Amino acid sequence: MSNKVQPRILPGFMELLPEDQIAFNRMYDTIRGVYERYGFLPLDTPTIELSEVLLAKAGGETEKQIYRFDKGDTDLALRFDLTVPLARYVAQHQQDLVFPFKRYQMSKVFRGERPQKGRFREFYQCDIDVIGLDSLDIVYDAEMPAIICQVFKELDFGSFTIRLNNRKVLNGFFSELGYADKIGDILRTIDKLEKMGKEAVNEELKEFGVAAGDIERILAFIAIKGSNDEVLAALKAQNIADERYQAGVSELEAVIGYLRRFGIAEENFRIDLTIARGLDYYTGTVFETMLNDYPSMGSICSGGRYDNLADYYTDQKLPGIGISIGLTRLFYQLKENGLVKSNAGSLARVIVIPMGEDDMNEAIAVAAKVRGEGIPADVYYQQKGMKQKMKYAARLGIPYAAIIGESERASASVMLKNMETGEQEAVPVAELADRIR
Amino acid sequence: MSNKVQPRILPGFMELLPEDQIAFNRMYDTIRGVYERYGFLPLDTPTIELSEVLLAKAGGETEKQIYRFDKGDTDLALRFDLTVPLARYVAQHQQDLVFPFKRYQMSKVFRGERPQKGRFREFYQCDIDVIGLDSLDIVYDAEMPAIICQVFKELDFGSFTIRLNNRKVLNGFFSELGYADKIGDILRTIDKLEKMGKEAVNEELKEFGVAAGDIERILAFIAIKGSNDEVLAALKAQNIADERYQAGVSELEAVIGYLRRFGIAEENFRIDLTIARGLDYYTGTVFETMLNDYPSMGSICSGGRYDNLADYYTDQKLPGIGISIGLTRLFYQLKENGLVKSNAGSLARVIVIPMGEDDMNEAIAVAAKVRGEGIPADVYYQQKGMKQKMKYAARLGIPYAAIIGESERASASVMLKNMETGEQEAVPVAELADRIR
Repeated sequence: MSNKVQPRILPGFMELLPEDQIAFNRMYDTIRGVYERYGFLPLDTPTIELSEVLLAKAGGETEKQIYRFDKGDTDLALRFDLTVPLARYVAQHQQDLVFPFKRYQMSKVFRGERPQKGRFREFYQCDIDVIGLDSLDIVYDAEMPAIICQVFKELDFGSFTIRLNNRKVLNGFFSELGYADKIGDILRTIDKLEKMGKEAVNEELKEFGVAAGDIERILAFIAIKGSNDEVLAALKAQNIADERYQAGVSELEAVIGYLRRFGIAEENFRIDLTIARGLDYYTGTVFETMLNDYPSMGSICSGGRYDNLADYYTDQKLPGIGISIGLTRLFYQLKENGLVKSNAGSLARVIVIPMGEDDMNEAIAVAAKVRGEGIPADVYYQQKGMKQKMKYAARLGIPYAAIIGESERASASVMLKNMETGEQEAVPVAELADRIR
Repeated sequence: MSNKVQPRILPGFMELLPEDQIAFNRMYDTIRGVYERYGFLPLDTPTIELSEVLLAKAGGETEKQIYRFDKGDTDLALRFDLTVPLARYVAQHQQDLVFPFKRYQMSKVFRGERPQKGRFREFYQCDIDVIGLDSLDIVYDAEMPAIICQVFKELDFGSFTIRLNNRKVLNGFFSELGYADKIGDILRTIDKLEKMGKEAVNEELKEFGVAAGDIERILAFIAIKGSNDEVLAALKAQNIADERYQAGVSELEAVIGYLRRFGIAEENFRIDLTIARGLDYYTGTVFETMLNDYPSMGSICSGGRYDNLADYYTDQKLPGIGISIGLTRLFYQLKENGLVKSNAGSLARVIVIPMGEDDMNEAIAVAAKVRGEGIPADVYYQQKGMKQKMKYAARLGIPYAAIIGESERASASVMLKNMETGEQEAVPVAELADRIR
């Protein structure tokens, strides 16, 4: 029989071996744990939605990348982010929700991008958003980076910095210069400063009709550096009358103030006026997060404040703030940089190994006992030689093997082998769970 | 502006309000916890695969139901179960896996069925399978129902029975009667006995050319009832020479024996000769699980033994055994029967409420402290009246509110209100976490 189908997956899709999947899940669970500890509610919207609903606002790149297809007479699409489904959900269930509505969703989204290193067509987004009815207090803007901070502390991939900015500051500044109608173009260009370099940004701004003198002023403005307090002082000293600018500086100052009250160390957050976030819908606070030792990874957690979550579904004003971690890409990057600790190919803490067939009953009983005490346990039931049995344990990286033979049965004990050191000793079954712990 | 898109989802898709989502996740986590405690490894295959790969063996109903579409020149499909992706995965990564390979996957699958009450087009399957290289010991057949048993004990939806059978017993019996070439048809018919009734099954068997006398013998055979030991004795007493039959009875006896050694109560498992499981690929042990008080739910967890997991991808013999819980459907049925306990609309154990703006700092600090001690905490940051603040806590069903005003700040305490009883008392911040626990 040679007419076998070659087992393979599509390019641009991530699939992991168990060892890596365990490490991936550990990250997923850590993020989820923090989100839940901050009082966010779980949400799980459908993967497939009506194209009409999902694409209500989309256009351009998004529309090209989307997986869209007909089933019967229905025009369907796979979600390409978790924000549009959230908007649809809140508009649809507004009467049943309690506001401010704090939700997390950690699900796969789909984008048919051209596959390239480190870009995925199917990837996890880990999102939190807080949605207010009519209004949402500025303290929520500070809670977001506080949560990011907790997440990356617990993920433990080294020092990180949350870069903060406020779109009102940028918008107000550009209005003051007389570019109110070009803010979108200018912001998108500035957003690429780190990637493209100063010269290219200069060129692009010129193309948009920004005067040479203004370009200089813009680049000087976004280059304002210093401690958070120094930057705030510099912003105030700019002598810009624009009201939005003033409001933005006040918000930025308030967020910085609350972040300190959240107990976030000063080294973990920094005002950075180059951060604009390309997306049009951000209207206030915006942030990005960098691993300090791996700047090439780019932002690993971004988000911001928006005035109106769901204006293509409802007239109800729904201001919100959210952040997103692209976990699939992050995992890939961490692994590329050797930062993923995949120690074991199993979640079991102990493998129970019956030496012969007669030891099977005792092995089953011992495994049941330690599981009952909360310890994940595997049992090797195959009737193979001891070498084969120990190889199973070793290849899976299970830390302990509890071997049971005739003498162990007679003494209600196991021969407990530390798989790393090779040491082994007789341990009474009654003490086994405690010993492994 | 009236050109709003109506926010809605497709029929046949499940989306829950937070209260139910919390209950759903609790079930999901319970199942996952048991799977992991038994040493199963996590797997997360892509949602989208190549149609050629995913449909290598499919046909008939499956092929009609599948979500299949082109993206560029590529013919894609959404997975319709987790078994085909597992087969593809094991064939693809065989060299990197440790056998027996024990994996769990709890993911959404997609079937474009005609929508009807309780049937979903996108639903979670919670699968475990153990795959052997060339061979797999019969003890694994007994471990599966032992795991089912643990799952449904922990889910705590009342008494349940795992019904066991063995396809070799049925196949051997029908061969003995001379229907070796009609086993598939007969099994599929018998499988419908409970749904269709005896008469309809009788008719259908007649259509397949089964002689009237044989139909009687078949129905008498599958009606054998009694304790597990009584049924085993009756099977042995049938005086059937067929080798497969003999092997099947031995296997059934072995599984029953091991189940007892696994400590499974006799009331939780029962040989039931009517269980065939429609799927062609089962070759040995098969099982279904019923909630005894809700027989109309049908089987809530089914599975069985197969000889060859991946014969359309590889010549390597890969025998295995697996079970699957259709969690979305199960959740729906439990909810319909009033069995889902959705007590709270929040995961937070306490909501911290600052009375005024001056109390915000203290509220932030108190929340950080209890979270640090592992207690999920929400904070109400909106500047609204106390009535509004308490309403938020009440509507979310958060059990405790920790209210902070001037006097609480002065005494480093909170006014802790039990939201259920209405009782409240001053509690020092240092003792708050312990009190809530």
